[in-house]
Amino acid sequence: MNGTMMYDALTTGSLIEHAARYHAGGAVVSVETDGSVSHTDWAGIAANAHRLASALDRLGVAADARCGTIAWNNRRHLEIYFGVGSGGRVVHTINPRLTPEQIAFIVGDAADEVLFFDQTFVPLVAAVKGHLPTVKHFVLMGPKSDEAAAKIPGLLFFDDLLQSGSADHRWPEVDERAPAALCYTSGTTGNPKGVQYSHRSLVLHSLSGNQPDGLAIAARDTVLPVVPMFHVNAWGVPYIAAAVGCKLVLPGPGLDGASLARLIDAEKVTLALGVPTIWMGLLAALAKSGSKAESLKRTVVGGAALPPSMIREFREKYGTDLIHAWGMTETTPLGTLNNLLQKHVGLPAEEQNRIRQSQGRPPYGVSLRLVDDTGAELPSDGSAQGNLQVRGHWIVESYFGKDKSALTTDGWFDTGDVATIDPDGFMVIRDRSKDIIKSGGEWISTVELENIAVGHPAIANAAAIAARHKKWDERPIVIAVVREGAAPTEAEVLAIYEGKVAKWQIPDRVIFVEALPLGATGKVLKAKLREEFGDILWQD
Amino acid sequence: MNGTMMYDALTTGSLIEHAARYHAGGAVVSVETDGSVSHTDWAGIAANAHRLASALDRLGVAADARCGTIAWNNRRHLEIYFGVGSGGRVVHTINPRLTPEQIAFIVGDAADEVLFFDQTFVPLVAAVKGHLPTVKHFVLMGPKSDEAAAKIPGLLFFDDLLQSGSADHRWPEVDERAPAALCYTSGTTGNPKGVQYSHRSLVLHSLSGNQPDGLAIAARDTVLPVVPMFHVNAWGVPYIAAAVGCKLVLPGPGLDGASLARLIDAEKVTLALGVPTIWMGLLAALAKSGSKAESLKRTVVGGAALPPSMIREFREKYGTDLIHAWGMTETTPLGTLNNLLQKHVGLPAEEQNRIRQSQGRPPYGVSLRLVDDTGAELPSDGSAQGNLQVRGHWIVESYFGKDKSALTTDGWFDTGDVATIDPDGFMVIRDRSKDIIKSGGEWISTVELENIAVGHPAIANAAAIAARHKKWDERPIVIAVVREGAAPTEAEVLAIYEGKVAKWQIPDRVIFVEALPLGATGKVLKAKLREEFGDILWQD
Repeated sequence: MNGTMMYDALTTGSLIEHAARYHAGGAVVSVETDGSVSHTDWAGIAANAHRLASALDRLGVAADARCGTIAWNNRRHLEIYFGVGSGGRVVHTINPRLTPEQIAFIVGDAADEVLFFDQTFVPLVAAVKGHLPTVKHFVLMGPKSDEAAAKIPGLLFFDDLLQSGSADHRWPEVDERAPAALCYTSGTTGNPKGVQYSHRSLVLHSLSGNQPDGLAIAARDTVLPVVPMFHVNAWGVPYIAAAVGCKLVLPGPGLDGASLARLIDAEKVTLALGVPTIWMGLLAALAKSGSKAESLKRTVVGGAALPPSMIREFREKYGTDLIHAWGMTETTPLGTLNNLLQKHVGLPAEEQNRIRQSQGRPPYGVSLRLVDDTGAELPSDGSAQGNLQVRGHWIVESYFGKDKSALTTDGWFDTGDVATIDPDGFMVIRDRSKDIIKSGGEWISTVELENIAVGHPAIANAAAIAARHKKWDERPIVIAVVREGAAPTEAEVLAIYEGKVAKWQIPDRVIFVEALPLGATGKVLKAKLREEFGDILWQD
Repeated sequence: MNGTMMYDALTTGSLIEHAARYHAGGAVVSVETDGSVSHTDWAGIAANAHRLASALDRLGVAADARCGTIAWNNRRHLEIYFGVGSGGRVVHTINPRLTPEQIAFIVGDAADEVLFFDQTFVPLVAAVKGHLPTVKHFVLMGPKSDEAAAKIPGLLFFDDLLQSGSADHRWPEVDERAPAALCYTSGTTGNPKGVQYSHRSLVLHSLSGNQPDGLAIAARDTVLPVVPMFHVNAWGVPYIAAAVGCKLVLPGPGLDGASLARLIDAEKVTLALGVPTIWMGLLAALAKSGSKAESLKRTVVGGAALPPSMIREFREKYGTDLIHAWGMTETTPLGTLNNLLQKHVGLPAEEQNRIRQSQGRPPYGVSLRLVDDTGAELPSDGSAQGNLQVRGHWIVESYFGKDKSALTTDGWFDTGDVATIDPDGFMVIRDRSKDIIKSGGEWISTVELENIAVGHPAIANAAAIAARHKKWDERPIVIAVVREGAAPTEAEVLAIYEGKVAKWQIPDRVIFVEALPLGATGKVLKAKLREEFGDILWQD
């Protein structure tokens, strides 16, 4: 020891301890599974997290066990995040929208010893229980329920379990690179793969992701994570909220626009986070109810392409800034966030909206690059499209249970996205690399074609895909869902592409369908569409 | 490798690389020592930092050498911060206001191999040169100057040195716990002691200190660090600015109110940082010039007790929020920052001003506690006064060149301050533990007595000290400097204490002097005052 600074491990336990010590009275509001609203605070969350950790010790759960959750965003889920993860174990959040087969697969792959779940999912768990041989303890997240106990023999109850634990428990010392959380990719192709987040990666993700150009959550904010806690750490909000001590509003199962609008007004939410479809529902509900959502200053949007009109609608009607962000399971998820630079501040609103359409810039701790199919790096000039690769403190290195690196030979993670990056670092996702249309040697972005299609007043939703073509290899076609009551012709829809894209990028066909096939995270399953419609131009 | 996240070292090199990659065009404005203004950007700073690092390599400077600086806040100093520190060496910033003897002592203690200095300090360096045996290279921070070369044989010139380096240089791989910077305590008692900041501690300090409840610097900000770069890393601003890419305005030597007011208006500064005396000068200059400092949204104030009226004056006349902060050389320095909690937002302005008077709350990564003289922990109830102890990622563990821990046996750093902490973590420095007055077993805060004294319109400055007393052990007396043109009586000054403090806390005497003795960092040397006036009540 000579001229040194103190060393403390960067752990999720230190986040919740900071909350308990310096934000003890900060409110946590939770909509429970039965619709009731419960109120607690950071001191209460921390105390219950300690109780849970010590109860799991007493129950004999292995010191480094994975513990699964199938749950909404609510107070008990937050207590599990810290009680399990900070207690030295690994909280494995499971997407309830997966098929029973997929759930059995990932619980088995993770070898979860405990499974926590909300009342909503009692039937699901009762059905798959026989296929979960690793699970020793099933825990219903609530008080004792004879009805549920009848369905799942040996069922434990979260509230009883807490009573068996002690709030005097102290967090174990853990290596900061040890895992604290686990989430599986949605796995639209092949089996889902697990990404295990270390304590260090989660803390650095919190600190860097919450910079003023990031989520920018302050103690005076009231934050509503509509993004599920089973979806990539709820974008880091539970950890960030503990670090800063904001008021946290957990919306439970009611994610329809009307429920969210009521919650925003009732709790004076200043910042909400979620996917575009959630905000479509909210905008419709606000228009219907006449609420101005006055408390709502900012919403963070990610997880899917953002309709360009949404930025304008939020800003002009509600004074809400829409912050576009990008990330994935493998990136914890915050990879980029869109906040304006100084040189943009004086620009006209339309020009600002155009910049805000980008997925944004990486915070300190994340680097981006574009490469072509040979691996050669492409310029960040705003026009070169390439495969997006990332590296940084909270990017996956290897998947759970896999010895093999998940990276390129020179240490970057290939996202599977095709993007452009401008000289200021503003990144635009042009497509998934497996979805992009390669026509006559040129790349055509399906995202761009879809945005134009949904700009037609008669089109509710649209997916652009590649159809095999004798001359051009691939040509774009659009599969579209018509808005209720409308009856557009194919020629009418194709007409709106004129002047918006180059002539050779205009789709060859528009095909109307009843609905688009969606995966567990709400994304369109384009592989299915290609299977069904990919040969439609071949006969020509 | 199995279920791991990437590991990158947390280094200052990664901060400046992020700046070069994602904020290349962000402006850096520098007032040079001759008063001229130069303009560069983050790409330019990064390129010159690389040039400097490779030039030092070629010069044969040891790979882990300490390199001293005696310099104002300017562009070259910023390039040295990164060129030296990120290059694997240690940038040792030296306070030019120290005596020549003190400078010789700390350069020798640090064994600096290189000494960089501004034109201003040529006479100082020429005078002490013979007492700096470890320094192999003296570097004037500017272009070639025959005049300076005549005074310091063998003198090198920064601009020539850069030309000998290469911008293609790459940062060496360094352990994140290796040192990057060194700063000595002001050492009002005993020899100054060096605190060596590790890469990890500087990066974590940047990320946590710049949270929305911290300095909250965004890319769209224009930041003016008036706090010197030789004073505890300029409160972390150079590192934070690189991470976020704000516009940085480095004020050079002209720190008078009129110069700062002009700079704020010319560069549209949104955030400025400095000690209270700087802001007194600025307020006087603004009042004189009639400028409204319209761009200035926030100022961060630390380093000395904050006059209560200053918060109100900034807010009411200029719409500027004054953010009170506390720290010391041993804490990098950000220990606490004062931003309001959600429950304070609706309070009346007067009540908010009262809360803002506190030094604030610790960001994530710092913990505070109060102990009595036996080491027993005291409650954080807002009224118990105790010795303030801290711990965290950017708190010193051992001083440079000392094998002994600087900490208590249970691992906390004793700040030498006496403070209170309220249940929300708001900390108020009541005194230095060596200055506090112990009268009849009770503690009397000299800071409080001084604030009241300077509230008298005839008093320009005041210091309260303990005078030895036969009955009470110690009693408070006030040493005061009268405002020009005023001639108050002792009784008039004593009268303003009535009703503001308990009767037994009212000072026994007020003694008028021409000036107070100040140390190198502008702090009143109370030990000197006690020497001179400490026995004044003994004869009574």
